[in-house]
Amino acid sequence: MTGLILSKAALSYQHFAEQSRIEDLRDWWVTECLDDVLSADDLRRASVRWLLAEPSLALAVLPYLPNLVWLQSTWAGVEVLLAPSLRRDYTLTNIRGIFAPLMSEYVLAHCLAHERRLLAHEAAKREKRWLNEHNGVLRGKTLLIMGVGSIGMGIAQAARFFGMRVLGVVGTARPMSDVDEVGTFVDLPTLLPRADYVVNVLPNTPATQNVVDARFLSLMKSSAVFMNVGRGQAVIEADLAAALSNGIISAAVLDVYREEPLPEHHVFWDTPNLTLTSHTAAPSFPEEVFGVFAENHRRFVAGEDLMYQVSFERGY
Amino acid sequence: MTGLILSKAALSYQHFAEQSRIEDLRDWWVTECLDDVLSADDLRRASVRWLLAEPSLALAVLPYLPNLVWLQSTWAGVEVLLAPSLRRDYTLTNIRGIFAPLMSEYVLAHCLAHERRLLAHEAAKREKRWLNEHNGVLRGKTLLIMGVGSIGMGIAQAARFFGMRVLGVVGTARPMSDVDEVGTFVDLPTLLPRADYVVNVLPNTPATQNVVDARFLSLMKSSAVFMNVGRGQAVIEADLAAALSNGIISAAVLDVYREEPLPEHHVFWDTPNLTLTSHTAAPSFPEEVFGVFAENHRRFVAGEDLMYQVSFERGY
Repeated sequence: MTGLILSKAALSYQHFAEQSRIEDLRDWWVTECLDDVLSADDLRRASVRWLLAEPSLALAVLPYLPNLVWLQSTWAGVEVLLAPSLRRDYTLTNIRGIFAPLMSEYVLAHCLAHERRLLAHEAAKREKRWLNEHNGVLRGKTLLIMGVGSIGMGIAQAARFFGMRVLGVVGTARPMSDVDEVGTFVDLPTLLPRADYVVNVLPNTPATQNVVDARFLSLMKSSAVFMNVGRGQAVIEADLAAALSNGIISAAVLDVYREEPLPEHHVFWDTPNLTLTSHTAAPSFPEEVFGVFAENHRRFVAGEDLMYQVSFERGY
Repeated sequence: MTGLILSKAALSYQHFAEQSRIEDLRDWWVTECLDDVLSADDLRRASVRWLLAEPSLALAVLPYLPNLVWLQSTWAGVEVLLAPSLRRDYTLTNIRGIFAPLMSEYVLAHCLAHERRLLAHEAAKREKRWLNEHNGVLRGKTLLIMGVGSIGMGIAQAARFFGMRVLGVVGTARPMSDVDEVGTFVDLPTLLPRADYVVNVLPNTPATQNVVDARFLSLMKSSAVFMNVGRGQAVIEADLAAALSNGIISAAVLDVYREEPLPEHHVFWDTPNLTLTSHTAAPSFPEEVFGVFAENHRRFVAGEDLMYQVSFERGY
């Protein structure tokens, strides 16, 4: 066999692969895990040239795929494959482009819920109390997006649709449509105090770790909301918990953490004004992942450049 | 004086009126209520030709304004002025155009919160439990809008932005951009079973009262969500409470009720899967209301047709 699909969603990928009628998409194996049916010995004997897999599953089989040319991750995040000790003699591609609409749903859901005070309305109902107070409105508020790649741009478009002003922080400042003002990390002291919402979408690289610390949070408005849909490593979690407990910022919404699932005794479980979700902001739907894979497979067979290549050095 | 501004937001309107520098916008009186400073007798003696007012306040002063030519409501809903026993010898205009973005925020906030299970995440956090379940996504879901005027159209555009399919019910079917399929009330038996979300934006007219009854709700998917941001009279509230208690539909979100504030012993306080808000979906911001008024005042002085005229017969 020349290809291997190794995924918890193996059955879905098998279905899409069979439906796809992609010429040359044949001679592949699809499985959820290495087992009695497909063993490491089988892999070594085979000549697997491409692999479609979750990064953690890929990590485990890399040693058994001496002929690997291309690895298509089913996820956006591929950190586990970037350790300097690991082999880098293949082309690594990840999934982009499909997450922006889902991330936009998540970010706008939580911005709108905050303005429209959904939790306060639920609490008032429990107390059978008519909540005779004004809500906020999202229109006219300012959103700062940390990391304006394809996902950040999608969030920017959604924010602009609702009449928000959008600020962006990127590695190298350049004008961007749908972002009113773009700066770099050195501009944070002037950008952060202007934002009503700050959302982190940065990939996990050495440069983006621990960016959100006590100083960062102290630069935000006390009425502002912090969201993290990027990577947990961007946030010093004790600093965020302290900022929420002390009213340095108004609220936070987290989908990613330094350790997942969140450990049983983590401070976040008892932190006020903190909404926790379970790394579910933008699920990888197999149908969409397969669409990216199918196009890359076509390019692979044709010898063309692959989409969404990850640089082992840059980390994204 | 030739004009009267009678509003709980009198001070704001005074500010905007003074700032506006509108030629001929002079010789008016602005107050929160009739009192010792401005009495009914004063009004009778004056020759008030135009009135900017909340409908309920306008109702109280109509008998004292024999020369009234034009009444600009500060609200969209003007039912109290439409009773057949009341005078109809003036031009009634209401506020439109400014509510669509705010209503869209509200509707999308609650659609997204339902898909992304915000309340379930809050409950899980209280129990220190990692909610290891999939969320829904809004993209691909179907929204049925009851009443596609300017507000309904704004909601349709927001829904389409998030990749929803939009169905509409109107009095007279006609093709509409941003609505995938338009029908009339007779089409409800085929439209309702296809909708994941049903939102009522109908004005309160004899034809739209009690539209949402047990039969209507039984035609909806058991997984579907009903929202009312139109008028409370559209819904038979006991039927809705029963449908929610019996799992006929999944959830409901209400901003308007037959009686407001919701009475102390109303069944809704104890109805499950029901979110209550306090007629705050789309607040009338004086600045925006004044913008509509200022343009209509210009037209009034120039003898042009006024925007947003309400038909006493149709009721909207």
